[in-house]
Amino acid sequence: MKEYLYKQLSLAPDSKFTYLTRAIYFVILLSIITIVLESEPSISSGNESKFLTLNYIFGFIFLIEYICRLYAVGLNPQYSGFSGRIKYIFSFYAIIDLISFAPFLLLPIFGIPTTSESFLLRLFRILRLFSLLKTSRNATGLILIGRVIMDKRYELIFAITMTFVIIFISAICLYLAEGHISPEAFGSIPRALWWSSVTLTTIGYGDIVPSTVLGKILTIIITVASIGIVAIPTGILAAGFSEAVSELKNRKDN
Amino acid sequence: MKEYLYKQLSLAPDSKFTYLTRAIYFVILLSIITIVLESEPSISSGNESKFLTLNYIFGFIFLIEYICRLYAVGLNPQYSGFSGRIKYIFSFYAIIDLISFAPFLLLPIFGIPTTSESFLLRLFRILRLFSLLKTSRNATGLILIGRVIMDKRYELIFAITMTFVIIFISAICLYLAEGHISPEAFGSIPRALWWSSVTLTTIGYGDIVPSTVLGKILTIIITVASIGIVAIPTGILAAGFSEAVSELKNRKDN
Amino acid sequence: MKEYLYKQLSLAPDSKFTYLTRAIYFVILLSIITIVLESEPSISSGNESKFLTLNYIFGFIFLIEYICRLYAVGLNPQYSGFSGRIKYIFSFYAIIDLISFAPFLLLPIFGIPTTSESFLLRLFRILRLFSLLKTSRNATGLILIGRVIMDKRYELIFAITMTFVIIFISAICLYLAEGHISPEAFGSIPRALWWSSVTLTTIGYGDIVPSTVLGKILTIIITVASIGIVAIPTGILAAGFSEAVSELKNRKDN
Amino acid sequence: MKEYLYKQLSLAPDSKFTYLTRAIYFVILLSIITIVLESEPSISSGNESKFLTLNYIFGFIFLIEYICRLYAVGLNPQYSGFSGRIKYIFSFYAIIDLISFAPFLLLPIFGIPTTSESFLLRLFRILRLFSLLKTSRNATGLILIGRVIMDKRYELIFAITMTFVIIFISAICLYLAEGHISPEAFGSIPRALWWSSVTLTTIGYGDIVPSTVLGKILTIIITVASIGIVAIPTGILAAGFSEAVSELKNRKDN
Repeated sequence: MKEYLYKQLSLAPDSKFTYLTRAIYFVILLSIITIVLESEPSISSGNESKFLTLNYIFGFIFLIEYICRLYAVGLNPQYSGFSGRIKYIFSFYAIIDLISFAPFLLLPIFGIPTTSESFLLRLFRILRLFSLLKTSRNATGLILIGRVIMDKRYELIFAITMTFVIIFISAICLYLAEGHISPEAFGSIPRALWWSSVTLTTIGYGDIVPSTVLGKILTIIITVASIGIVAIPTGILAAGFSEAVSELKNRKDN
Repeated sequence: MKEYLYKQLSLAPDSKFTYLTRAIYFVILLSIITIVLESEPSISSGNESKFLTLNYIFGFIFLIEYICRLYAVGLNPQYSGFSGRIKYIFSFYAIIDLISFAPFLLLPIFGIPTTSESFLLRLFRILRLFSLLKTSRNATGLILIGRVIMDKRYELIFAITMTFVIIFISAICLYLAEGHISPEAFGSIPRALWWSSVTLTTIGYGDIVPSTVLGKILTIIITVASIGIVAIPTGILAAGFSEAVSELKNRKDN
Repeated sequence: MKEYLYKQLSLAPDSKFTYLTRAIYFVILLSIITIVLESEPSISSGNESKFLTLNYIFGFIFLIEYICRLYAVGLNPQYSGFSGRIKYIFSFYAIIDLISFAPFLLLPIFGIPTTSESFLLRLFRILRLFSLLKTSRNATGLILIGRVIMDKRYELIFAITMTFVIIFISAICLYLAEGHISPEAFGSIPRALWWSSVTLTTIGYGDIVPSTVLGKILTIIITVASIGIVAIPTGILAAGFSEAVSELKNRKDN
Repeated sequence: MKEYLYKQLSLAPDSKFTYLTRAIYFVILLSIITIVLESEPSISSGNESKFLTLNYIFGFIFLIEYICRLYAVGLNPQYSGFSGRIKYIFSFYAIIDLISFAPFLLLPIFGIPTTSESFLLRLFRILRLFSLLKTSRNATGLILIGRVIMDKRYELIFAITMTFVIIFISAICLYLAEGHISPEAFGSIPRALWWSSVTLTTIGYGDIVPSTVLGKILTIIITVASIGIVAIPTGILAAGFSEAVSELKNRKDN
């Protein structure tokens, strides 16, 4: 029984993706969808009791899962014995698991009402999905992307810093150019920062738009700079991926 | 006659791009343009009978083409004989051909009125255009793009998953920050999801914009993350294309 | 005199960038700025006669330049003699030169008033600036970009075709989903095409936004597709530039 | 004392990142944040005297720092002696330092009121942060990005020129198509330039949108061109980074 759970819950370091693990991920997904739908008043109003029941069911499933994990994890030499269990309880995924169901079961005991905010704690379970990355197929993507970002961290940090500096300088330009004319939009540097970051990342909500000729000319110049803000990090990453791939190939050839 | 049709309709596996085939593609294009124009009330109102006639003409042409194909395809050893014809009828392009003209000819027989929605079925013919890709020149582009996407599928799936996770987390942030202040815009996670996906893909309609200081600060941070959402897949694909090209060259050299 | 003009007007096939040529480019630029400013009513109103004078001055300068070129080009063996001059008159840049000043001088003769639209013909002179590319430094950029686009034309044509197909399919989706609810915005395929092309290129004006839940869910899906629309051509071009650069290096090494 | 200051202020050519230098950068950052917050009326109103005191404190700190630097820099052989000090005073960072605190101390002496605009001069201190780049870790990013941009300057200048030409041509198209219909938005080339630069850089505020069918068709075509405007510079930079990285590796191998 213990061994069956140990295998099925994918607790072994080199474990496969079992049917029970898949079922748990499916329940996590369902539970997240429930919270998302519950947050929408046009869906939840009138169905509060149904959603509360669902929340308790999910909480109960997660509690049982937690107990099973705690019981079966002992077969993993890293977490065997009493001290191993304590160590497991404070491991990353065990804390996530605990946070996600704790409010449903503990809060009512202490007479604290389970508000809809406390349900949101269950969203932490989304972090659980990262454990999916243990499986080799997904890991390929993660490892490569992570490695490229690590390899190019100095260039990327420099590019992001430059982006913030350009956003800041643009904000000051428009604050000086239009601050007196449209105080609501550009009357202070923080207000102008909202405009400049929305513009330079090419989102362009259009809620704030310069109204003077000077402001528009400045914007056109700033606007062309926005091409560089996208192009430089992309170029860095593209080179990084090419490099990582050719290194992998060289290693294979040798 | 049969051989002539067989050649002209490009039914042979290694067929060339004949004049009849070109004419058929031209008629498909015309028929699609007709549907597009017909859907516009300011064009179609008053000309309903003309458009109906056009629709019947196109339907008739496609019926004849279908019969000719069914007749001539027998010369292709893959589709010869009665069982071969049945096999052909259920092939991808034959089904598309059937769907595209069937409503015009069959519906009136059964007394069902041909509504403008049924005409839309002809739009399936757009899929017919994919058969254009059989010609070698277009295929170069398709094969290379398809191969790069296949080669990099794990990285791309991971990048897309991360994009959705970032969109989801951004939506939760704004739901918590502004849900109580602007319930129409951020009052539930699904509503906030609309805002966060429009923002993080840098579309930025501006129909929903955070109004609080906290919401705006969160947006500025999220906004800079949007650069990564575009840069990472682009970098992956750029590396993939470089790789595919150098592989092709190596193969040529050897 | 003739030789001096021949050299100074950069008419020789391997000509350098002379002072007179620079002066002419400066006059072209000035003349374009004049047209741009003249088109703005708040600048031109009250100064109509000044702008008219400027237009005649520019026209006169271009006329003299044209005559000088026609006179001096004879030293170029390609355009020598009477038949060579005729050949020169019908060369690309000579036609542009003629178009740009002709209306100012010919129209009044025939009693046709020189409207502000006829001045716009001078904008054709902007094409003259392309002759700047003859100088070797600018040519490096042009040749490389042109070559990469030529090398990758099949992939790029395929990517652009796919972009149009995705824009078209998105338009049909929203036409079916919201056509009956917001006829002004999505009431026909052409109207929906406006929305889908603005959205998928991540411009996102926000003048038209889906209002139903179905429309918004479709948009979120379509929206993520927009990342690919930017990423694929960028990836193709990035690979193309890498390739072109390494080829140039190989040639140098050999 | 002098040697301690010389080391601590990172004045030596091969200086490390000391605690005092870190403290100074922290004060610079604090002083910038103060200016940003002060510019926001909802924060500064009522606290004017507090902000004025802060401004004087920062000015005083920067004055002392300046005097210490001027005193200790003599140990650097490049700036030793009286003429060396004069040379230091006119060095880039010393001028920035002087600009940033001068108004607070000199203006009141001459009876000129310290307006909030004069405080903005302190923002020049942001340029001081560039000296952070002297440290080797940050320099890696800067040197690589700077080198790639230098290597590819002809291609990038050509791409940016093309971007401006496309923006200009798009503006003329819409000016001709919609100038008579919506004079406010497209009534002159400069007005249309605002629209075309906001559209082609994919910002898309939506404050100005074409209203006619012709204008919309032109926009759809222009819109697809915007993909190239982002893709070409990105491709150039991506190739540049790949190249720079492989060169660095070759040098290391040899």
